[in-house]
Amino acid sequence: MGFFYDKNAGIDSLKVDAQAFDYIYKVRRTSDDNLLEFRNLKDDNIYVYRTDYLEKKSAMLKLVGSEEKPTKGVGISIGWCVVDPKIIEKTLPMLNELGVTNIDFIYSQYSQRNFSIRTERLESILISSNQQCGRSDMMSFEIFDSLEKWVKAQNGFMVLDFGGEILPKDIAKHKFLIGPEGGFSEEERVALAKQADNIYALDTKLVLKSETAAVMIAGRYV
Amino acid sequence: MGFFYDKNAGIDSLKVDAQAFDYIYKVRRTSDDNLLEFRNLKDDNIYVYRTDYLEKKSAMLKLVGSEEKPTKGVGISIGWCVVDPKIIEKTLPMLNELGVTNIDFIYSQYSQRNFSIRTERLESILISSNQQCGRSDMMSFEIFDSLEKWVKAQNGFMVLDFGGEILPKDIAKHKFLIGPEGGFSEEERVALAKQADNIYALDTKLVLKSETAAVMIAGRYV
Repeated sequence: MGFFYDKNAGIDSLKVDAQAFDYIYKVRRTSDDNLLEFRNLKDDNIYVYRTDYLEKKSAMLKLVGSEEKPTKGVGISIGWCVVDPKIIEKTLPMLNELGVTNIDFIYSQYSQRNFSIRTERLESILISSNQQCGRSDMMSFEIFDSLEKWVKAQNGFMVLDFGGEILPKDIAKHKFLIGPEGGFSEEERVALAKQADNIYALDTKLVLKSETAAVMIAGRYV
Repeated sequence: MGFFYDKNAGIDSLKVDAQAFDYIYKVRRTSDDNLLEFRNLKDDNIYVYRTDYLEKKSAMLKLVGSEEKPTKGVGISIGWCVVDPKIIEKTLPMLNELGVTNIDFIYSQYSQRNFSIRTERLESILISSNQQCGRSDMMSFEIFDSLEKWVKAQNGFMVLDFGGEILPKDIAKHKFLIGPEGGFSEEERVALAKQADNIYALDTKLVLKSETAAVMIAGRYV
């Protein structure tokens, strides 16, 4: 299921440099007569390579075949009000394995403004997660500087909050909005009550952290 | 929803020492005329205290009332084949918020034997998680040194693995077995096929990490 990533996967002769070399031949203990499966995470193909020759800290690989084999996200889209980026980074592999296709990061009223989302960092976490879980597409991100702007850009969405109808076990594929640490402000709650298709609550007295709610929602779809 | 923990909560005069003092009056910014809700995480009561007097790094509190108010786990029990303790510790708050009542840690064939589960450490993580999510009971742990012994101690269980029937959205409250990093061995699979009530797979081509599977299963119950 796992594969190796190289942005140039697909070309006839692929050079593997130091970092990837260590990962392939040391961490993953690939023997030089094994076939190696690569993806470029842009198209849906698996590119099969053979080690052509090994040097001390690099290798040249020769393309021996390819196969179209998409293993994509499952179409879940989450609007996640911004929490501490460290928490987002820790939670991202779980959301990626569960097939979340898109996350909109939203600065809602209780999101701390000094939390900045570095999408390049998130993308490098995704590349390593994709290699492990066998996913062929990249999750996409968008950043919204207010909840109001995010709501305007939606074509229907659901909200997880306190005091709504109990979340059904089987939920339609749809956009799900999840509050930040501390939840939504009263002003936001009044607005969301008018704008959302549904507001759902969980059947529990315990208070979930924002990241737990995100993983739980994504987990309903697999 | 949150509360403060003290193992002696319930006595008339409660002394708050340095560490708890900082948390209560600095981190949580409790004013000395606020009422403070405590739990001892042994009984189901909330004990309400008032600050009697403050010293430089400690305080004495006076009990002013109590109320029986259980906010317990929801009866989910997980058999989790041992993975890296760092991963278990990171994942535990999520499982706690979702109401997991019990985790059996099982050394299955692909669990690394040198991973040791320090339950005191897990308990201190739970105490801090309980204070945040408002949970009144402590999750319990048991450790089994082989999958065979665990299976013998069960009275029915389900397994999450590859290639089973698709996991239904609505699953009965029951014991769920989750494999370690790398899954079950062939020998274990053959045995489990005979012993488990059901073997379920997920409707996805992506490979979930052990901790993601655990959170996903727990999330099905809220």
